[in-house]
Amino acid sequence: MLKEAIFHRPTDHFAYPSGKEELHIRIRTKKEDATSVLLLHGDPYAIEDGAWQYTETGMKKTGTDTLFDYWSAVVSPPYRRLRYGFKLSDGRETFVYGEQGYADEAPENVAFYFAIPYVHSSAVFKPPGWVKDTIWYQIFPERFANGDKTNDPDGTLEWGSADPEVDNFFGGDLRGIIENIDYLKDLGINGIYLTPIFKAYSNHKYDTIDYFEIDPSFGTKETLKELVETCHKNGIRVMLDAVFNHSGYYFPQFQDVLEKGEQSIYKDWFHIWNFPVVTEPKPNYDTFGFFPSMPKLNTDHPEVADFLIKVGRYWLEEFDIDGWRLDVANEVSPAFWRRFHAELKAIKPDLYILGEIWHDSMPWLRGDQFDAVMNYPFTTNVLNLFAKGTITPKTFAEDMTRVLHMYPANVNAVSFNLVGSHDTPRILTECGGDIHKVKQIFTLMLTFTGTPCIYYGDEIGLDGELDPGCRKCMEWNPGLQNRDLAEHIKKLIALRKERPILANSGELFFLPSGEKNHCLAYARSEGDITIVIVLNTSSQSTVYRLPAEYTASSAIDLFTGQRVQGSQSGEMTINLSGNGIVIIEMENSN
Amino acid sequence: MLKEAIFHRPTDHFAYPSGKEELHIRIRTKKEDATSVLLLHGDPYAIEDGAWQYTETGMKKTGTDTLFDYWSAVVSPPYRRLRYGFKLSDGRETFVYGEQGYADEAPENVAFYFAIPYVHSSAVFKPPGWVKDTIWYQIFPERFANGDKTNDPDGTLEWGSADPEVDNFFGGDLRGIIENIDYLKDLGINGIYLTPIFKAYSNHKYDTIDYFEIDPSFGTKETLKELVETCHKNGIRVMLDAVFNHSGYYFPQFQDVLEKGEQSIYKDWFHIWNFPVVTEPKPNYDTFGFFPSMPKLNTDHPEVADFLIKVGRYWLEEFDIDGWRLDVANEVSPAFWRRFHAELKAIKPDLYILGEIWHDSMPWLRGDQFDAVMNYPFTTNVLNLFAKGTITPKTFAEDMTRVLHMYPANVNAVSFNLVGSHDTPRILTECGGDIHKVKQIFTLMLTFTGTPCIYYGDEIGLDGELDPGCRKCMEWNPGLQNRDLAEHIKKLIALRKERPILANSGELFFLPSGEKNHCLAYARSEGDITIVIVLNTSSQSTVYRLPAEYTASSAIDLFTGQRVQGSQSGEMTINLSGNGIVIIEMENSN
Repeated sequence: MLKEAIFHRPTDHFAYPSGKEELHIRIRTKKEDATSVLLLHGDPYAIEDGAWQYTETGMKKTGTDTLFDYWSAVVSPPYRRLRYGFKLSDGRETFVYGEQGYADEAPENVAFYFAIPYVHSSAVFKPPGWVKDTIWYQIFPERFANGDKTNDPDGTLEWGSADPEVDNFFGGDLRGIIENIDYLKDLGINGIYLTPIFKAYSNHKYDTIDYFEIDPSFGTKETLKELVETCHKNGIRVMLDAVFNHSGYYFPQFQDVLEKGEQSIYKDWFHIWNFPVVTEPKPNYDTFGFFPSMPKLNTDHPEVADFLIKVGRYWLEEFDIDGWRLDVANEVSPAFWRRFHAELKAIKPDLYILGEIWHDSMPWLRGDQFDAVMNYPFTTNVLNLFAKGTITPKTFAEDMTRVLHMYPANVNAVSFNLVGSHDTPRILTECGGDIHKVKQIFTLMLTFTGTPCIYYGDEIGLDGELDPGCRKCMEWNPGLQNRDLAEHIKKLIALRKERPILANSGELFFLPSGEKNHCLAYARSEGDITIVIVLNTSSQSTVYRLPAEYTASSAIDLFTGQRVQGSQSGEMTINLSGNGIVIIEMENSN
Repeated sequence: MLKEAIFHRPTDHFAYPSGKEELHIRIRTKKEDATSVLLLHGDPYAIEDGAWQYTETGMKKTGTDTLFDYWSAVVSPPYRRLRYGFKLSDGRETFVYGEQGYADEAPENVAFYFAIPYVHSSAVFKPPGWVKDTIWYQIFPERFANGDKTNDPDGTLEWGSADPEVDNFFGGDLRGIIENIDYLKDLGINGIYLTPIFKAYSNHKYDTIDYFEIDPSFGTKETLKELVETCHKNGIRVMLDAVFNHSGYYFPQFQDVLEKGEQSIYKDWFHIWNFPVVTEPKPNYDTFGFFPSMPKLNTDHPEVADFLIKVGRYWLEEFDIDGWRLDVANEVSPAFWRRFHAELKAIKPDLYILGEIWHDSMPWLRGDQFDAVMNYPFTTNVLNLFAKGTITPKTFAEDMTRVLHMYPANVNAVSFNLVGSHDTPRILTECGGDIHKVKQIFTLMLTFTGTPCIYYGDEIGLDGELDPGCRKCMEWNPGLQNRDLAEHIKKLIALRKERPILANSGELFFLPSGEKNHCLAYARSEGDITIVIVLNTSSQSTVYRLPAEYTASSAIDLFTGQRVQGSQSGEMTINLSGNGIVIIEMENSN
């Protein structure tokens, strides 16, 4: 076996408590190398005659990517303390791997092994229980619905009368959302995420002027209160957007620094290189990207931290929101996020804290900062497979296996999955207008591990290029909506709610994808039940044969309600039309 | 090249700030595989025509272990933001490695690369500056010196009149330390670490009864004040031992639980499984190890946390101590340690917080819990090489390279290196009484990365088996001390102080060790200066030839003061006697 490929470290996604009584342990080996991995585990203090006492538990192969296999086991140490190692075998050679390296036989010395010294309740990653069962709907308030014409800004255009531009306004507001709660309920979603609603200059409101005021063109604090209450009455959670990395140019504290320079009491609120502060030709202060109009806030400064914590608390305590989505979260001080997490969870323990991070996010997901991040690796892979056709189902499966094994399983369960947002081209546009592809994409997202989010209008076939194109006015005329797509998505949402297994934190396992038939297939299992999802990414009809371990005399296609018959030996062969979708539920035969 | 062996993740020891303006980046490759690794790096927002703009910096191979090579580079991103990848080559093939995997050419898409989104001051690991220049001396107070006979406990034996037992007393106390400050100054140490001094039952005092009182047999609070002041006046720091994982059996709060059971207001201070609480035949509560007399404290409970934080603050604020050594630190709640770190560093920013952890400690060394841990992997390897002869210099070099590359370099610089303690047999005993081996071991420790600690009496040749044998009374009769060993150690301490390069955080690089000549050789470098240490682990004389890159016309043996002549080509050949020690300083030729 290839020792160089073997990896384990007793932290992060390789070893973590999934409860005070339960530990998940994972190890990585070279692809198709080891044929058996045993976890040797015991109490650190269980030493008899100098020899550490352990038991062996078989590990399960939970996935394979381009280079590696991943193995998992769950153990419940009686004293919540664990030493452990791995006995690997490929049928020809066997060796033991521990913190001190490799040995032919399991060493007696306990120091050879990895250690989880004690599982503390406070160290268990505890995302809110409601999140994994939530289907989100992202609303860009200026473009969802205009419910109150009296608060329209000057120059507001008639709803949908023009293409969206970086600087035009159509009058969308909070009242418009309240008036359309029935639409959202009918769709089946049970969480809304609003892009920023605080007083700001632009139509997107990411350039905050006042963190304690609702933008007047969106309504008042009373309107927000009514919106949250209406949502809660209808079983819908509400998440707001916190832009804490940078302020807007017109943020009074920044204006004060621009005006008074070194004399400003706010001079340490930003990262100013020298005085006087200039914005041209290049800013002499840290910015978001290279935009002089978005001065970066110094979130390590106690006054700034106090101020932003106050913001976070205010909207939580006064308006009872359920989640904070954190803009450009990766560039804000982790020390600040730790304080934010501690202080806000103390007020509402089941608050969802979601960071916007596009890259590897493990350091932010150790339980002391965020519950989840926006799952852009998911977005990228989905687009590459279905929309762009630049990767095969096999590559998709391998890369998503890699991504899923980059994080603990309980982190994956609340990962924020999206296939489009106000920052990307719309999914229909990415699919070149092919509604079949869009349907497959939503099928995948709504049967996948992680909490799915639908970008407003995607469900009725809105299209649009990158910002500002993707920020069109919502289409409210049913005759102009793609109702077929909407019904497809409604059905999937209903299915996800009926079958909690689709939203559980258990392993998601990809089935082999032949290069020939272009099928992506994966299984969700819990207890005796397995649901297998097969998506034919080709426009040609095809046949997908389930691997031998997925035998059953019959199974139900949850999507069509039809019975799928197995062969006499129990082998299941699935016929798929071009771009076909099959979701079958079967009882595990073993 | 072997892709399975390549590893990087933008966290922990692979990517960390060593200052607000400086990032260390490391990567691991298969041993003797890649011949060149370039770091491709640039600002995340430096995109031109869709293509990310980067520069290339060569990475240096900083070490090799049994399976892997390690490469390092330091970069100073102007906006404190970084995206980066690695271009690896073995002369035949070249490819680029990033967060999304492998590519033949450097992809234009910035999302392919690893990310360090922003370097915050608060995220820089900042151990106290004085620690790396400190040479510690560990004192077991009951056995160092009896300075005040009036506080001797009943039945105190005459100093050194008997073998140490688990339950006998010799009267050692704080006054005894004060009276011997001149001895410590003369030795050259500049930090003392005292095992517990708070009121407790045993002679080792790890079974605390009162965390707010000095044990009466050790002295009074006034004596401790005098001790700290005397030490500080003499340039010696003082570190105390905090036993927070468990209390002693006679801790009043535990006695209250034993007595009142479920009615005790302290019932949640421990991990009680059910009531009434019993200690026989087996305790029905969590303990340290399986000892009923050491009930584990519930450090997740706010009252316990408040109580222990108060303890931590009290001795710091009232007595101005310089460090806390944390007993069984790995089994205490990390959430508690985070609070301990935050609250105590707020009082004394250069307080040294040292955790007792014997295994892989990365999760505790992320800057929010400890400054360092006790380096037992160092101890084990040193004993195996010099004392037990179970490994070769080559294996030692490989394993210490592995250990050094498990942590950031700035973490290694303050790692607490020890070769014996009150928990291990004494080093002379481990060496079978061979003083040459002991000398080599101290030479290694005092020229190695990390802050070294001498266990009282080891410097004058005290011997002793595992506890209680290793807790003998200090020998104060110079005629019975091994002065030759003491002078050797004094000389090394003086050398370490004269040559800060020996204590710096720069890389420690092992030179090739042939299996034949039994020499361990390593280099410490900074700027133009390199110090090479060569230790002949065999009792036969030998010759060690420095690798070609360590050429010099001449060099000084810092230990003998003699000049070592290079050959005409500059090649350095070093003659070593059996168990010989050479420490040469040379100017880098390139």
